[in-house]
Amino acid sequence: MVGIEIKIDLSYEILGQSADFVFNIHAANTACQTVLYESLILNQDSLTQIYTDPSTGNRYMRLEASPGLLNLSYRATVELTHHHSDPEHLAEVAISKIPPHVMGYIYPSRYCQSDRFIRLATNEFGQYWQGHSRVMAIQDWVRKRIQITPNSSNSSTSAVDTLIEQVGVCRDFAHLMIALCRAVNIPARFVTGTDYGANPLFGPTDFHAYVEVFIGDRWYIFDPSGTAIPMGLVRFGTGRDAADVAFATIFGHVQSHQPIISTVAIEDVSRNVVLPYHCIDALSTDIG
Amino acid sequence: MVGIEIKIDLSYEILGQSADFVFNIHAANTACQTVLYESLILNQDSLTQIYTDPSTGNRYMRLEASPGLLNLSYRATVELTHHHSDPEHLAEVAISKIPPHVMGYIYPSRYCQSDRFIRLATNEFGQYWQGHSRVMAIQDWVRKRIQITPNSSNSSTSAVDTLIEQVGVCRDFAHLMIALCRAVNIPARFVTGTDYGANPLFGPTDFHAYVEVFIGDRWYIFDPSGTAIPMGLVRFGTGRDAADVAFATIFGHVQSHQPIISTVAIEDVSRNVVLPYHCIDALSTDIG
Amino acid sequence: MVGIEIKIDLSYEILGQSADFVFNIHAANTACQTVLYESLILNQDSLTQIYTDPSTGNRYMRLEASPGLLNLSYRATVELTHHHSDPEHLAEVAISKIPPHVMGYIYPSRYCQSDRFIRLATNEFGQYWQGHSRVMAIQDWVRKRIQITPNSSNSSTSAVDTLIEQVGVCRDFAHLMIALCRAVNIPARFVTGTDYGANPLFGPTDFHAYVEVFIGDRWYIFDPSGTAIPMGLVRFGTGRDAADVAFATIFGHVQSHQPIISTVAIEDVSRNVVLPYHCIDALSTDIG
Amino acid sequence: MVGIEIKIDLSYEILGQSADFVFNIHAANTACQTVLYESLILNQDSLTQIYTDPSTGNRYMRLEASPGLLNLSYRATVELTHHHSDPEHLAEVAISKIPPHVMGYIYPSRYCQSDRFIRLATNEFGQYWQGHSRVMAIQDWVRKRIQITPNSSNSSTSAVDTLIEQVGVCRDFAHLMIALCRAVNIPARFVTGTDYGANPLFGPTDFHAYVEVFIGDRWYIFDPSGTAIPMGLVRFGTGRDAADVAFATIFGHVQSHQPIISTVAIEDVSRNVVLPYHCIDALSTDIG
Repeated sequence: MVGIEIKIDLSYEILGQSADFVFNIHAANTACQTVLYESLILNQDSLTQIYTDPSTGNRYMRLEASPGLLNLSYRATVELTHHHSDPEHLAEVAISKIPPHVMGYIYPSRYCQSDRFIRLATNEFGQYWQGHSRVMAIQDWVRKRIQITPNSSNSSTSAVDTLIEQVGVCRDFAHLMIALCRAVNIPARFVTGTDYGANPLFGPTDFHAYVEVFIGDRWYIFDPSGTAIPMGLVRFGTGRDAADVAFATIFGHVQSHQPIISTVAIEDVSRNVVLPYHCIDALSTDIG
Repeated sequence: MVGIEIKIDLSYEILGQSADFVFNIHAANTACQTVLYESLILNQDSLTQIYTDPSTGNRYMRLEASPGLLNLSYRATVELTHHHSDPEHLAEVAISKIPPHVMGYIYPSRYCQSDRFIRLATNEFGQYWQGHSRVMAIQDWVRKRIQITPNSSNSSTSAVDTLIEQVGVCRDFAHLMIALCRAVNIPARFVTGTDYGANPLFGPTDFHAYVEVFIGDRWYIFDPSGTAIPMGLVRFGTGRDAADVAFATIFGHVQSHQPIISTVAIEDVSRNVVLPYHCIDALSTDIG
Repeated sequence: MVGIEIKIDLSYEILGQSADFVFNIHAANTACQTVLYESLILNQDSLTQIYTDPSTGNRYMRLEASPGLLNLSYRATVELTHHHSDPEHLAEVAISKIPPHVMGYIYPSRYCQSDRFIRLATNEFGQYWQGHSRVMAIQDWVRKRIQITPNSSNSSTSAVDTLIEQVGVCRDFAHLMIALCRAVNIPARFVTGTDYGANPLFGPTDFHAYVEVFIGDRWYIFDPSGTAIPMGLVRFGTGRDAADVAFATIFGHVQSHQPIISTVAIEDVSRNVVLPYHCIDALSTDIG
Repeated sequence: MVGIEIKIDLSYEILGQSADFVFNIHAANTACQTVLYESLILNQDSLTQIYTDPSTGNRYMRLEASPGLLNLSYRATVELTHHHSDPEHLAEVAISKIPPHVMGYIYPSRYCQSDRFIRLATNEFGQYWQGHSRVMAIQDWVRKRIQITPNSSNSSTSAVDTLIEQVGVCRDFAHLMIALCRAVNIPARFVTGTDYGANPLFGPTDFHAYVEVFIGDRWYIFDPSGTAIPMGLVRFGTGRDAADVAFATIFGHVQSHQPIISTVAIEDVSRNVVLPYHCIDALSTDIG
């Protein structure tokens, strides 16, 4: 079991009459991820609505902010119980056996135009054994080609752009890996959360975007940008791509300040809570 | 009330070892669209799985076909009870009031990159009263610019392409209209079904793609390509865009033959079943 | 006659072993633009090669810089004698009459994909009288839609992007106007030089990009971003688009500092040298 | 020496009032390619203008056609004297040494967006010895990835599309190879002509598009689609990409029929005219 304390401080300047926000920064409550404690403080007296999507468990918080400063402080303590599998035994699922609610994740989406990558992905990965090692090959392929570079992409950058330009941030790595997986009929989805264990060379702790792939009988975690210790990732949301699970979708004239984020792992041997570590098992926080 | 009989005959040649299909050609069962009768005949002895998506009501039929010919005949008799509204009283919904399950339809998707159209849509439509007439203005704008031309687009053509090239088929009209609606925060979704009343100049009866927009308290039908009598449209599926509700998603080496489709309206004055007609009311087959 | 003194100070930090530069910052010598005086000072002892393109008169200076700082100071005093024409009498040239060396400027180029705009441009501008007023209509159309915004585009932004995103800098205005002109068979080219008379709201004096269009019997100046007094523009280069006439094309690992540019108009009534002014005549610095 | 007889029969239906054509189907006259004989027959009594571009030697024929059928028959007998070089001794040219008139061919163009491929090309080819073998590596890379497929691309398909979709015709192979060469600062240009020795599997003899790369002291021929015997290629035009040297640029409402093309090699041992053969030398028809 792994325990993580996360702190998120967001700050915005609302310049217009008002602005609407949809946040997806609450740690998800799932069978494998338990939110032991959480708090949210807003400096504005806004009415917030929190909506939990029944199919993904994503929690979206919507609010209408008044002009001036909007500060948001979120704190949570989360415990994660990972499902471990032996990668060698994880096979892909034949199309006819993919669970219906998973099918949508082999279709193309805004930032993952898998329909355009079918030949490329088939040429590169078509000959592999269809299982975990093929997904690893896709992840390695992406990681080998794309160079992590802060501020090298923007909100309209898609997998096609990333493959051509060969540069990006974690979100771009995730989009390209997802597009390539879908192009060979492996269901793949975009996951957001907080980073853990990231190399400080790439900047302060930040939000993180990574990938889950459906193999065997559930969704397994992959971190294509390779910056995190996957066992320490806390999930906020999953979706088709970044369009579904932006940390903050903003409607209105707003200036955003840099988010301040920290994640700390807790150790408690008495309760078998260990520090996250790099492991060779395939990890899932999904119950299948 | 409107009654429609639809006949769909599809034919494929499976060239490889086998091929998987996901069809979305069953008339949806909704509160306003009742399937009185339906039958499906396949020439192959395939096991079919039918999955009804709980959030949209879309029925997806999956099957694995053997080499050789695959013929599929679908017949259905459908009754539609339209919700009529006075367009003048249909206002858009403030972002903070959009139902949570509708929020996803203001985000960009594969073929509707609304994130890139925000300035354009705001410049063109930002000054309008925010309601049904603004949606009509968007529809007119699309219809005025884009020229219906069979075979002028392909499966990777998106709203950005259509705006630049100004040519397309019903699917492209729908994608562009959806992208523009979302760019001004109007939820919009892609709908598929059978055409009714189409001008034979544009070819034989075909599948049709159109748009539903969430205004007032429910989804209203718009037909941006302007080829159909909307009251006669039978809905198969709704989704973010064509990626979600392709008539047939095919995995494998398959040659497709031209579908043969017919839709006939039934008249039965005793039961108040009338022929579809062009009306100025806003029409919905959604219960809100 | 108009007289302009320009000062350009460029500064680069060469971070690698060496770096190659191709500059296009020399005022062009043409029949209508005379360089009375010019000087160039480099802080490095580099061998420079200056090449004058015979067909355009562009002067390209190539040099190989050593590690460390590269400073370049260019000073020039230029006199311009504009050809004035009555816009009402300037007709477009039939395709069969376009001079052969001008034909290349109706073809698409890297940043001006006119081949994709043919329907759009024909729909918007096809009904106009084919002459100067049509080109003005195209310029107005661009100016009305695109919002000048510093740093809103980058070196891969093309006319397609600008039409969709509706934001850009002078270079983007020029590319979009050129693409639309070519799409209705009007030869158009990209011109670079120094700005004159620009609104200080948009920042300090900078390099400028504008358009020349071949109508009547020569190339006429248009300033689609509308920021300059066209009579005060000093030409460096003309080309198909920005790919041909970048101020500095850099090969190697180099950090660029902000250029410092000034342009001052000289008045000398004794020699009939007047200050640039906005005039309604069509202006050309080309001899046809 | 090689001798080729070419026959080109083109046929168009002019549907509008009239239509303008610019043809680039005359065999170029160069120091290495001599047109011994040529004839051109038009069924319409059009005035043709032929313009020879001084920098490339391309011959463009312009004409205005009347409504109805336009038939064009071109016959030419051409002799080619190839410059042969040992590939091992052909090094790339340092940027500072590239002849000025060649510099334009390292810049991006409509269909060869080399500016977007810099990282990719540097990653793939940056470590190679900078000479003929690096160009061969680029050609092999393209040939290995892209699948020749008739009708898989259209007139707006660019190198970016081809790299993603991995399918195309000779023109697309040429565009992608050119883009990759320019991205590592190797001047490369697009060449059109007639095919020779093409595998009949890929259809009847057709126009052909290939590549010339500036290495050593001149332009050398490469055939990235690998369909031709390069020694038998007769050159019509060279340009930045297909935008410059279309076989026929058509203005007006015209229906095009399939061109009928034949190329026959002549053997004449008495004059040392041999049949084209695959050779390992680097071949050029340029005098440097």
